[in-house]
Amino acid sequence: MASIRVALGERSYPIEVGERLIDDPELYRPHLSGGSAALVTSTVVAPLYLERVARAVRAAGAEVIEVILPDGEAHKTWQTLNLVFDALLTAHCDRHTTIVALGGGVVGDIAGFAAAVYQRGVPFIQVPTTLLAQVDSSVGGKTAVNHPLGKNMVGAFHQPRAVISDVTTLQTLPMRELRAGLAEVIKHGAISDPAFFGWLESNMDRLLAREPEALTHAVVRSCEIKAAVVGADEREAGLRATLNFGHTFGHAIESGLGYGQWVHGEAVGAGMVMAADLSARLGMIPPAESARIRSLVARAGLPVAGPAGLAADRYLELMAVDKKASRGKTRFILLERLGSATLRGDIPEPQIRATLSACTSA
Amino acid sequence: MASIRVALGERSYPIEVGERLIDDPELYRPHLSGGSAALVTSTVVAPLYLERVARAVRAAGAEVIEVILPDGEAHKTWQTLNLVFDALLTAHCDRHTTIVALGGGVVGDIAGFAAAVYQRGVPFIQVPTTLLAQVDSSVGGKTAVNHPLGKNMVGAFHQPRAVISDVTTLQTLPMRELRAGLAEVIKHGAISDPAFFGWLESNMDRLLAREPEALTHAVVRSCEIKAAVVGADEREAGLRATLNFGHTFGHAIESGLGYGQWVHGEAVGAGMVMAADLSARLGMIPPAESARIRSLVARAGLPVAGPAGLAADRYLELMAVDKKASRGKTRFILLERLGSATLRGDIPEPQIRATLSACTSA
Repeated sequence: MASIRVALGERSYPIEVGERLIDDPELYRPHLSGGSAALVTSTVVAPLYLERVARAVRAAGAEVIEVILPDGEAHKTWQTLNLVFDALLTAHCDRHTTIVALGGGVVGDIAGFAAAVYQRGVPFIQVPTTLLAQVDSSVGGKTAVNHPLGKNMVGAFHQPRAVISDVTTLQTLPMRELRAGLAEVIKHGAISDPAFFGWLESNMDRLLAREPEALTHAVVRSCEIKAAVVGADEREAGLRATLNFGHTFGHAIESGLGYGQWVHGEAVGAGMVMAADLSARLGMIPPAESARIRSLVARAGLPVAGPAGLAADRYLELMAVDKKASRGKTRFILLERLGSATLRGDIPEPQIRATLSACTSA
Repeated sequence: MASIRVALGERSYPIEVGERLIDDPELYRPHLSGGSAALVTSTVVAPLYLERVARAVRAAGAEVIEVILPDGEAHKTWQTLNLVFDALLTAHCDRHTTIVALGGGVVGDIAGFAAAVYQRGVPFIQVPTTLLAQVDSSVGGKTAVNHPLGKNMVGAFHQPRAVISDVTTLQTLPMRELRAGLAEVIKHGAISDPAFFGWLESNMDRLLAREPEALTHAVVRSCEIKAAVVGADEREAGLRATLNFGHTFGHAIESGLGYGQWVHGEAVGAGMVMAADLSARLGMIPPAESARIRSLVARAGLPVAGPAGLAADRYLELMAVDKKASRGKTRFILLERLGSATLRGDIPEPQIRATLSACTSA
């Protein structure tokens, strides 16, 4: 087992990564401040892991309330959030009740936001069961629900007391979701650690085979990289923006196709290939480094080109309204070398069009 | 005009108190970080002051979005909160939009909570137009909405960038609400400033006549006292509890009668008389000091006894489930002298019954 500390002053917390962690009462015990814990999970994850987590939390001395939410991004809404409040109030949970989020990013976002605002804030433990949640959403403290007029429009920054990332739970993850998580793992290597990027090139097959040691290393190194970035820039001013590498193009793909057609990690995979292509086209990195990114994304089984039928004009339009657009200028996270990213807002449109043309499926 | 600084590190903010402040663009300008401001108010306050505030905010350089909510505690709900989000998203407000709360405590609580969670937090200015909001809810950063199963169950601590308390707006306040605000003013004197308590004894008639200089002094001194307490104890651990003087009995009255029968300040008025009586009964203060509190509450036109028909057993039951009850023991804020309060959890039931018997209307 490895332990990473996310350094955020009095809101610092540990991320424990390893095998068969969810059954260990000692990992929960130090973070259960009161006598009760509300385990929030989804209809998909509950039959797999809820009873094991409940047993461990009870063994750690807390009374357990179970809250099972409908699964999927379509349910990341006010209505689902209110189901959590209803359950907490019906069970007379007070401000010392700890909320435990067991599941992927959607459960983490809803349960985390519930923890941020229930009685003006209660403690929160994350037990992520998808690779995406383990490498991405468990670090940074972002919580939110969607609004019909926009994704993640209502939320809070609320840091967990602890994250318990059990890579054994990834054995039950659908292959498509495993690959989607790998997109963010590759991103972490690309933006800040060339050695880790090299390790991924050597170990992609082990990750796809779900070897626990390889998964543990990938999760640990991803969390270390993201934690370092977030620790330096908690509220997303500058450095934190580099975590959006591949996301400007990726969001345009998700939004242009309609959310749900491609999963987020697939869009980010193709988006990273585009951002690397654009970086090379601008002379910021050699073509060989752009090719390495394309090759690694392909080996993870992710798309390396945008979908046929999404035109360049539509990308430009969608990227202009993306939240990273500042005063009309679309901003891109580009590479200044493999392992180092930078925010650029001055990219000539012909170069963007050239990248889109080169990186779109026929 | 007086200016009080609430010292909360990087979340410190000024409270400006005086006459005809809402028209002054210079009071808004330093706190409008972006190009747009959403003015959130109620159907009651909008016809009185919205246009004047909108004019001043526009003169300070911001585009104005107006959001008018249904009035009253019954509308302090998710549904009303969502009206704010709908309006902000429809107007394409981003994370640089400043929310301006214009109205009493309900508007401040809803608009403040909206500011805490819209796009994970946007800047917030309070323009309180009731005495209660000026002396109480504008300091402390508490925001919330009610849930069918409990008041203020969902909320956040979110400090404003500035509070603009224009005592001229109190000229239009219904008399009953003016008196209710005075309950909290008296409370501030009773728990921490005997000189201010004495000033209130000498100036109650001027306050009831709404003399601007007297109101300004009462608001300033109340905010200074509350700010000092909150600054020392932002998250409500110990000292901040003393601000609940009169509230343990008061909440029981509100809850026992059904919310809305007595307004909050009326219940706090009678509650303070009870808490003072109990303090004297326990030998903590001389009877003469308890009598001074009773007399001042009476001169403010507030009830000095609980309602007929609310039995002692019912008080004890309601106070036991109050959130200040810790491990089954009801905790009271009592006086150790006029101007100094303390939290006590060891009060024998016969003494509590004696106080209830002495302080209930026949």
